[in-house]
Amino acid sequence: MTRRNGHMALGAFLYPTGHHAAAWRHPDAQADAGINFRHYARLAQAAEAAKFDLLFLADSAGARGEDWGALARFSTHYVAQFEPLTLLSALAAVTERIGLVATASTTYNEPYILARKFASLDHISGGRAGWNLVTSGNEAEAFNFGREEHLAHGDRYRRAGEFLDVARGLWDSWEDDAFVRDKASGVFFDPEKVYRLDHRGEFFGVRGPLNIPRSPQGWPVLVQAGSSGPGKALAGASAEVVFTAQQTLADAQAFYRDVKAEAIANGRSPDDVKIMPGIFPVVGRTREEAEAKFEALQNLIHPDVALSILEHRLGVPLRHLPHDAPVPTDIPLTNAARSRQTLLLELAEREKLSILQLALRVAGARGHWQVTGTPEEIVDVMEERFLNDGADGFNIMPPHLPGGLDDFIALVVPELQRRGLFRKEYEGRTLRDHLGLRRPGRRHRHNRAIDAA
Amino acid sequence: MTRRNGHMALGAFLYPTGHHAAAWRHPDAQADAGINFRHYARLAQAAEAAKFDLLFLADSAGARGEDWGALARFSTHYVAQFEPLTLLSALAAVTERIGLVATASTTYNEPYILARKFASLDHISGGRAGWNLVTSGNEAEAFNFGREEHLAHGDRYRRAGEFLDVARGLWDSWEDDAFVRDKASGVFFDPEKVYRLDHRGEFFGVRGPLNIPRSPQGWPVLVQAGSSGPGKALAGASAEVVFTAQQTLADAQAFYRDVKAEAIANGRSPDDVKIMPGIFPVVGRTREEAEAKFEALQNLIHPDVALSILEHRLGVPLRHLPHDAPVPTDIPLTNAARSRQTLLLELAEREKLSILQLALRVAGARGHWQVTGTPEEIVDVMEERFLNDGADGFNIMPPHLPGGLDDFIALVVPELQRRGLFRKEYEGRTLRDHLGLRRPGRRHRHNRAIDAA
Repeated sequence: MTRRNGHMALGAFLYPTGHHAAAWRHPDAQADAGINFRHYARLAQAAEAAKFDLLFLADSAGARGEDWGALARFSTHYVAQFEPLTLLSALAAVTERIGLVATASTTYNEPYILARKFASLDHISGGRAGWNLVTSGNEAEAFNFGREEHLAHGDRYRRAGEFLDVARGLWDSWEDDAFVRDKASGVFFDPEKVYRLDHRGEFFGVRGPLNIPRSPQGWPVLVQAGSSGPGKALAGASAEVVFTAQQTLADAQAFYRDVKAEAIANGRSPDDVKIMPGIFPVVGRTREEAEAKFEALQNLIHPDVALSILEHRLGVPLRHLPHDAPVPTDIPLTNAARSRQTLLLELAEREKLSILQLALRVAGARGHWQVTGTPEEIVDVMEERFLNDGADGFNIMPPHLPGGLDDFIALVVPELQRRGLFRKEYEGRTLRDHLGLRRPGRRHRHNRAIDAA
Repeated sequence: MTRRNGHMALGAFLYPTGHHAAAWRHPDAQADAGINFRHYARLAQAAEAAKFDLLFLADSAGARGEDWGALARFSTHYVAQFEPLTLLSALAAVTERIGLVATASTTYNEPYILARKFASLDHISGGRAGWNLVTSGNEAEAFNFGREEHLAHGDRYRRAGEFLDVARGLWDSWEDDAFVRDKASGVFFDPEKVYRLDHRGEFFGVRGPLNIPRSPQGWPVLVQAGSSGPGKALAGASAEVVFTAQQTLADAQAFYRDVKAEAIANGRSPDDVKIMPGIFPVVGRTREEAEAKFEALQNLIHPDVALSILEHRLGVPLRHLPHDAPVPTDIPLTNAARSRQTLLLELAEREKLSILQLALRVAGARGHWQVTGTPEEIVDVMEERFLNDGADGFNIMPPHLPGGLDDFIALVVPELQRRGLFRKEYEGRTLRDHLGLRRPGRRHRHNRAIDAA
């Protein structure tokens, strides 16, 4: 067990009122959090004061789920909240150091438009942008973009790969020193340092150049969350941060090994990709206090909400079965949600959960790694994963907000710092600085824009 | 000449270093303005302190122009700057009252994605968002979206009309009081107050609902700039602010009459659409000082820049002709730029301009209405248009920044206020409040989302 150099990375993964299904009913919750900018500004400033590496925002281009009766009792299901890039741009103006990671899908966006927005956020924030690149395997999204069904899994990943290739090409449209802006000579930029992309592929045709200079980080930090085979392959080839969910140290180590091996197979250093699993921490000054906090939240979940979420995640109806029956083992794995289904079915089998028990577990920590206990206990398991090649850092998924994040900052962060596991001051200014990721050089291209004239 | 109730509206139309082609070479210019957030924050706060109604940002989804040698001497040609929605979100966080209008094209965006972003900006800003709806008639954009040429004029406007219809439907997904967020009963929203759109049209298929609550203004303020027949028709049918360019009072009055008549023909009140022409003011304490300011800027223009801009605007090569030859009158009007071409050719004919003279004029005020003089002289002509049905307000296009805006605020605004033509304090909080525009009610729809369950 060798102590590695450097600290762990910490992300604040923010759902509007928190990750717990009933978080919005917590007495201290801002029930309108999804459209409350001051709420997010306060959280961002608190996470920055605690020296977090980044904020992380999920997204979906559609109101997910069909069961509106259950959704009406559940606020955190992408039903109604800020669009993340818009929100992060505004948060960039009220923070100075913390990284800003927005989820955006490659399935229904256009690479030119999205690449511009991330480059713009990177400029506005002084080099703090990150892009959580996802594919959309959700009919609720497909129906908003003229499709009768979502793209097949393989098509989505091929499109994602091409999308990323185009985006990186666009971010490399200008050499870093292309803009001389010399008032005396009247030369604004060097026309020999701007490049067309001239991309023509299966999904996109994009000439370029991008109409914004190369950004402080070169590219935003590339984040991915795929746990499927193609997901891990794409992560190994190009992700710089991987968000994931594993319940056990052994699973975490296996995933960590797989992704680092993929990175090496792609000619990258294992340090070029940071594995940051989610952790759903319930913190108390004593174990009993922590358990009581969680119990209080669980008691706020309506069973229909829990069952609806589980049905949605597993893709099958369950409410016609007895709630105390075991989780069926013959659930068909779907194109849309294969890796998520597998994680849940393994959890149910390992812990012998009934349908309602699994449903409440999912609605609580939503399939993520839940740790309930004292600051010392929580740091013990984080340290174990960090020191044993199970994680390079963690995305903190507070059960409720602002209290869950405040608890983590007040109680857990000092213990991490005391053990030398987390920074006390930012060492640099950009998200790449925080994470210890190199700034990518511009990849050489021959198609100078000036030749097109 | 009847004095109307209320004040004129003022917009600050911001190009990075200003609207003049050589603005970036001005001694006080921030040459890196296009990616300098503090520069924009300072301008936004100055305009807000002066009680402007709105900021207005242009856009293009491509680096326009092919002549990279000339572009290299010209910074303000969409070559390299912030994406406007990202920028305005950040500016929303550092301002409190001023309206925030971003240009976004209906030609290469998806309505679900764009409608979300504007609703998000409207929430973040507390009801200050506006959308300048444009169509993209530019090959430099088409090439970035898998097309060999831009869409035909008629197709673009049909797409724009359908896009707007979808966007308004999506903004109306939720009734204003759909979110009850009652912690005690556990009801977050009323599922009977959310609606699917179920749109299937020529260009788009969008189910909805939008995954964000109805925003403070209901819809962002809808701005348009089309001066062609279909452009004026779309403006009359749906625009709430029209940005335009007319050189003379008579032309301004004719345009004003046309658009108001279109509004009436569409069952709207003429007050539902505000005509806000651009004005390029060069202000001096004396006429001589103003003219010297302009002359100093004109002397910074390289002839190749001026000719390149004119070639691009007229769509024909001109540099092979003698610079002092008259502007050719047989220039073919193109699908892409018909209305802009016509405005320029009329200007050349009216003032008997040579090619280089027209080129320098275009590079200077870029075809917009230039007024050079003392504050009293500038207010005289603004007042004349405002009181004689030529304008409901103006988009101020400062020649250079920050100086051109600072001059207008320090010298012209007090004179406007002295004559009772402009407010001294904001009367309300939203952009609709500032402009005297009603908040649109939700249009009735029968397809309740809950019926889909």
